[in-house]
Amino acid sequence: MPRRSQPENTLIEKIRRVFPIARGGRKIRASRNFLPLAIGDDAALFAPTPGCQTILTCDWFLQGTHFLRDKHPADAVGWKSLARALSDIAAMGGTPRCFLLSLALPPDATDRWLDAFLGGLRRAAQRFACPLAGGDTTKRGEILINIAVIGEITEGRALRRDGAKPNDLIYVSGRLGEAEQGLRQLRKQHGTASRNNPRLQKHLYPEPRLALAAWLSKKRLATAAMDLSDGLSTDLPRLCSASGVGATIDATSLPTLSHGIASASEATNLALNGGDDYELLFTVPQNKAKKIPTNFAGIRITQIGQITKAKKVLVSGLSKSPRILRPQGWEPFL
Amino acid sequence: MPRRSQPENTLIEKIRRVFPIARGGRKIRASRNFLPLAIGDDAALFAPTPGCQTILTCDWFLQGTHFLRDKHPADAVGWKSLARALSDIAAMGGTPRCFLLSLALPPDATDRWLDAFLGGLRRAAQRFACPLAGGDTTKRGEILINIAVIGEITEGRALRRDGAKPNDLIYVSGRLGEAEQGLRQLRKQHGTASRNNPRLQKHLYPEPRLALAAWLSKKRLATAAMDLSDGLSTDLPRLCSASGVGATIDATSLPTLSHGIASASEATNLALNGGDDYELLFTVPQNKAKKIPTNFAGIRITQIGQITKAKKVLVSGLSKSPRILRPQGWEPFL
Repeated sequence: MPRRSQPENTLIEKIRRVFPIARGGRKIRASRNFLPLAIGDDAALFAPTPGCQTILTCDWFLQGTHFLRDKHPADAVGWKSLARALSDIAAMGGTPRCFLLSLALPPDATDRWLDAFLGGLRRAAQRFACPLAGGDTTKRGEILINIAVIGEITEGRALRRDGAKPNDLIYVSGRLGEAEQGLRQLRKQHGTASRNNPRLQKHLYPEPRLALAAWLSKKRLATAAMDLSDGLSTDLPRLCSASGVGATIDATSLPTLSHGIASASEATNLALNGGDDYELLFTVPQNKAKKIPTNFAGIRITQIGQITKAKKVLVSGLSKSPRILRPQGWEPFL
Repeated sequence: MPRRSQPENTLIEKIRRVFPIARGGRKIRASRNFLPLAIGDDAALFAPTPGCQTILTCDWFLQGTHFLRDKHPADAVGWKSLARALSDIAAMGGTPRCFLLSLALPPDATDRWLDAFLGGLRRAAQRFACPLAGGDTTKRGEILINIAVIGEITEGRALRRDGAKPNDLIYVSGRLGEAEQGLRQLRKQHGTASRNNPRLQKHLYPEPRLALAAWLSKKRLATAAMDLSDGLSTDLPRLCSASGVGATIDATSLPTLSHGIASASEATNLALNGGDDYELLFTVPQNKAKKIPTNFAGIRITQIGQITKAKKVLVSGLSKSPRILRPQGWEPFL
């Protein structure tokens, strides 16, 4: 009869020690206890807010597919695994409430790697007020992470992908292509990247645009929104397809990188096709455009184009006439 | 620049076709739309029931760890991946509402294997009224599955692990050891097991005890409960530890297997240490014991012991005097 090894219990105990905040979430928010029961039972209990809908999302973060163990610092793996799932909550205009962590680890990652991973994960959980509610652990040859996040949004106020209308203006937050540029640099380097390398920050420690999206939802300014996880050239056609519309964007208006780049065309290429930026892509009716600032809490907001009735996604400014924007965004490390 | 391969979109489309039920969940429950927004956006929206708490759980189901691709039928992998996560909802006394599917597949599993997998998953989703709300897909060398289930329970009525009191009686549902016996047989066989082999049913197609647990919660009969996923000898000490109590169980009272077993001691060994049964383990105050039937909707219910103040977990009936019950339950295929 196989004997259950104790590591699973030990691993759970270690996670509990790092996330005492999860026990009722009291350290994170004193106002209300969203987690009457967290880690340690068969399942967690979440207390929903009356008048709100619950937002549900989950994300893989897999060694070799989404991160490289020999190059990505474990602390950044922890941060990013939660931050990118939180970006889906932001994409809906919601507020994060708690998350579930599924973790499969090789024996050689249960010590130092795990400590650093949990450290980064905990900082993201604290930063975005999203305590750990529970999860599942097992042993495995490679590091496998899956994060499910539970968020909330006032009923009827979710920012969906399918609400864009012809003539709506298209906006993006932040700068595009920076995460991809960081990834390129990281791939060229030997050994684990430094957590503090400023050119890698956007790739290693993305920031979900929660505040901006919640504001757009609250003020009813956006007709559609999504987060840019796979690159504009891949994600914009998805938004258009969901809304049954097309779009024309102006490549010369893109918020591109200005330094560390060989040429303007390279910057445009990165902005169109670079993945992992976790910026917000959203559409706004023309009559509300004046309410959109050029800067929201330090984050640049740029109008990059317009929704069209014709169901084609075009990019102008690259050649004499607008051409079809072909999906060339991110793919796993395969 | 890496080019995003189209398979992810195709895979999601395939899943959408198999789970049209997920679009609002209308085909599953006409009474109320729990899923105003399912597959296809950045995240799903769930409409919580006023007066209920939300139950959150997630479970790994990994090739080579939890199932063997050359032995377990894909249909059973689909059924079981959801059924075992639903068992955690049952363990809380709750009602399933929807689930998220995270799926990583090798290219050679996106056709026939995927169809059969989705078939089994869909049957379980329909059987237990738990539609697909969303998920995440990626490409990977081995099949990786993670299922997160969202359930509900009337506020304050969850069956927790930590409520058992000295002198409470200990019960289990069903028969113990049957899934383990099935696994042993499957391991001896060559090739993929038949879906219809009656001796493999409990191993391949476990049934979460949702109705029994919901009844125990509604009638306020159980002081504590959990599901038996890793085997009684591993799980009972967990319940006792959470409740700060001990237990004595009588090995001669266990609902063991009666056929296909070499000896009575072998049957007892399987009942104590076999994993994957997904039966319910629960405790009941003595003054409510007469309300517990010996059979609930065709499922046997057996009193197997009693909670004690002394924090030891003992088993009697195996030797002259009771001895410590040592955790010898399930471990991954490693």
